[in-house]
Amino acid sequence: MKKRIIKLLIWLSVLLNILVVTAVILAVTGKLIPLLAPLRMTNMESPNYERLVSQFEGFTVQSGDVVFLGDSITQGGAWHELFPERPVRNRGIGGDRTKGILNRLHQVTNGNPSQVFLLIGTNDVSFGETDETIVDNIVTIIERITDESPETQVFVQSILPRGASYQERIETLNSKIRAAIGDRGEWIDLYSLLLDEDGSIADRYSNDELHLLGAGYAVWKEAIASRVRVP
Amino acid sequence: MKKRIIKLLIWLSVLLNILVVTAVILAVTGKLIPLLAPLRMTNMESPNYERLVSQFEGFTVQSGDVVFLGDSITQGGAWHELFPERPVRNRGIGGDRTKGILNRLHQVTNGNPSQVFLLIGTNDVSFGETDETIVDNIVTIIERITDESPETQVFVQSILPRGASYQERIETLNSKIRAAIGDRGEWIDLYSLLLDEDGSIADRYSNDELHLLGAGYAVWKEAIASRVRVP
Repeated sequence: MKKRIIKLLIWLSVLLNILVVTAVILAVTGKLIPLLAPLRMTNMESPNYERLVSQFEGFTVQSGDVVFLGDSITQGGAWHELFPERPVRNRGIGGDRTKGILNRLHQVTNGNPSQVFLLIGTNDVSFGETDETIVDNIVTIIERITDESPETQVFVQSILPRGASYQERIETLNSKIRAAIGDRGEWIDLYSLLLDEDGSIADRYSNDELHLLGAGYAVWKEAIASRVRVP
Repeated sequence: MKKRIIKLLIWLSVLLNILVVTAVILAVTGKLIPLLAPLRMTNMESPNYERLVSQFEGFTVQSGDVVFLGDSITQGGAWHELFPERPVRNRGIGGDRTKGILNRLHQVTNGNPSQVFLLIGTNDVSFGETDETIVDNIVTIIERITDESPETQVFVQSILPRGASYQERIETLNSKIRAAIGDRGEWIDLYSLLLDEDGSIADRYSNDELHLLGAGYAVWKEAIASRVRVP
């Protein structure tokens, strides 16, 4: 009896170790995070998300404002320094996805801003959303902006390149978004400006194949400078 | 021979499991992260740190500017919206410590700003730095600002409250910092404004006993508003 229990414990131990070793191998080869993505805290529950939303609640967007709306890539931009003397508001939140934007869109449309520059979708890809869901959500975002704040000009910026393995997916997705928005928003192609020959985002623009370095923001600024409203 | 190898493997397996279970217990009780702190990537090596520094490199601080210098708590503040119409620059970087500030201080002093509002040290505490090192580094930061940019007014803000277990440490540290800076910088006590009766940061100001919600930034703004330069 005692021997059987010990044998059972040993087998449980071996089994647990196989799981641990598998997890380590997946982690090292970069496959663990995507597999666990559905289990991760959704962006709308993270403490950082709540902090930014609570801060934005106190700063009402004003008529005349230029709103940069998106995820960590937008959040990371020093928009006031990229466009001094222009009435910009940074409304990027790290980890945000298309449905997160829909949840907090009233904080933007409430104030009837002059312009919205939207860049969203790359985290949807990481979380395994389909192209159809992402495209539908982006179209809904534009329709809601136009509905709730008819004077607002909407600029939809292409999803940025990432690692080369994302090239086909993101290029297809960008084509679908562009086709779906039609003339409901102005399309701005940042993708091809940041792309390297190997299909990834160029090293001089990103140090993690996702977020932008100062040189990346400079390219972005250059691409939209003539469109950003001067008061 | 074969039996001995199997026996050895089984014991290795059990040993590995004991390590894994210990790590899980430490993680659940919140003791794993502090233990691993010395092994973590230092802030100056993180991709986020490099991205912000590369962006700041392109935006030279100007004479007349008001610079908010610090870690994630400073980075998280929408300073342009807290102080519209004032020439503010956000120079907070998540995870930064006193020695990180010393490494990038030239990006601030280069431009001879009018004012620097410094809030740094809480990550030093997390990384196990001694009070003496933290105090020395803060004094060196002030001396270097005064040396490299003599016209700059320096405001040293107290380290904020965290969980109640930090109360004694942070109160002692704040007293030491205040005593050490003397009249080389103006001391601003944010600590007692954000403290709850139980010795932690009040729940209405923080959702993670470290970073600030919108209401926390409103208290901070109120505390310094009369000092922030109006152009």
